[in-house]
Amino acid sequence: MSQEKAIIGKAKEVKPLIINNEMTKDVEKRILIGKSNYGAPNFVMRLFTVKPGGYSPKHSHRWEHEIFIVKGKAEVYDGEKYNAVEAGSFVYVPGGIEHQLKNAGDEDLEFICVIPTSADEE
Amino acid sequence: MSQEKAIIGKAKEVKPLIINNEMTKDVEKRILIGKSNYGAPNFVMRLFTVKPGGYSPKHSHRWEHEIFIVKGKAEVYDGEKYNAVEAGSFVYVPGGIEHQLKNAGDEDLEFICVIPTSADEE
Repeated sequence: MSQEKAIIGKAKEVKPLIINNEMTKDVEKRILIGKSNYGAPNFVMRLFTVKPGGYSPKHSHRWEHEIFIVKGKAEVYDGEKYNAVEAGSFVYVPGGIEHQLKNAGDEDLEFICVIPTSADEE
Repeated sequence: MSQEKAIIGKAKEVKPLIINNEMTKDVEKRILIGKSNYGAPNFVMRLFTVKPGGYSPKHSHRWEHEIFIVKGKAEVYDGEKYNAVEAGSFVYVPGGIEHQLKNAGDEDLEFICVIPTSADEE
């Protein structure tokens, strides 16, 4: 896929995948920029919204995350302990490190999370 | 470089490179997560702050950008025209497309911009 101009979009207009299961509570995932939608070759930018009381799974995988907290308050498990983290912070999760983000506030937690395309977009 | 836990930091505590030249006005660049600081293998997350009246260069290069507008108002050149873009929007600039971000408001414009490591960190 090739474009002749840049693509501009509003994150909240991207249809979310709503995730609720044994490991995950009240998480919305939006793939903003990836291979599947715009042919981006190397990495995938996703926006996650975690409702108050919600959390992402506590898990690890072989690929890395580069995360920026856009809004709200989080508790971030870094492989050893939970840390209070606020909007304007970044988190680098190397491959193989167990991690989790919980909403620790009473408004939505929003964060950008970038992964390699090779991780696929799931 | 390998870590045993995730790295957590505050973006504004990262020392900025302040850029003012013929092409660029009142831009602060912070490398949040990259190969040089944390050994991130594939892509580099930067935070740019553009002061009111400031702008990034109008230019193109062979690598792509994945951008998320965190704060403020921008005018984004997409290769064809300027577009009004607000916080909560994303911009995908494929390699080879001319682009520019201008601060179009009266507060700081902040955006996350991710590039491949192969682009190096300049």
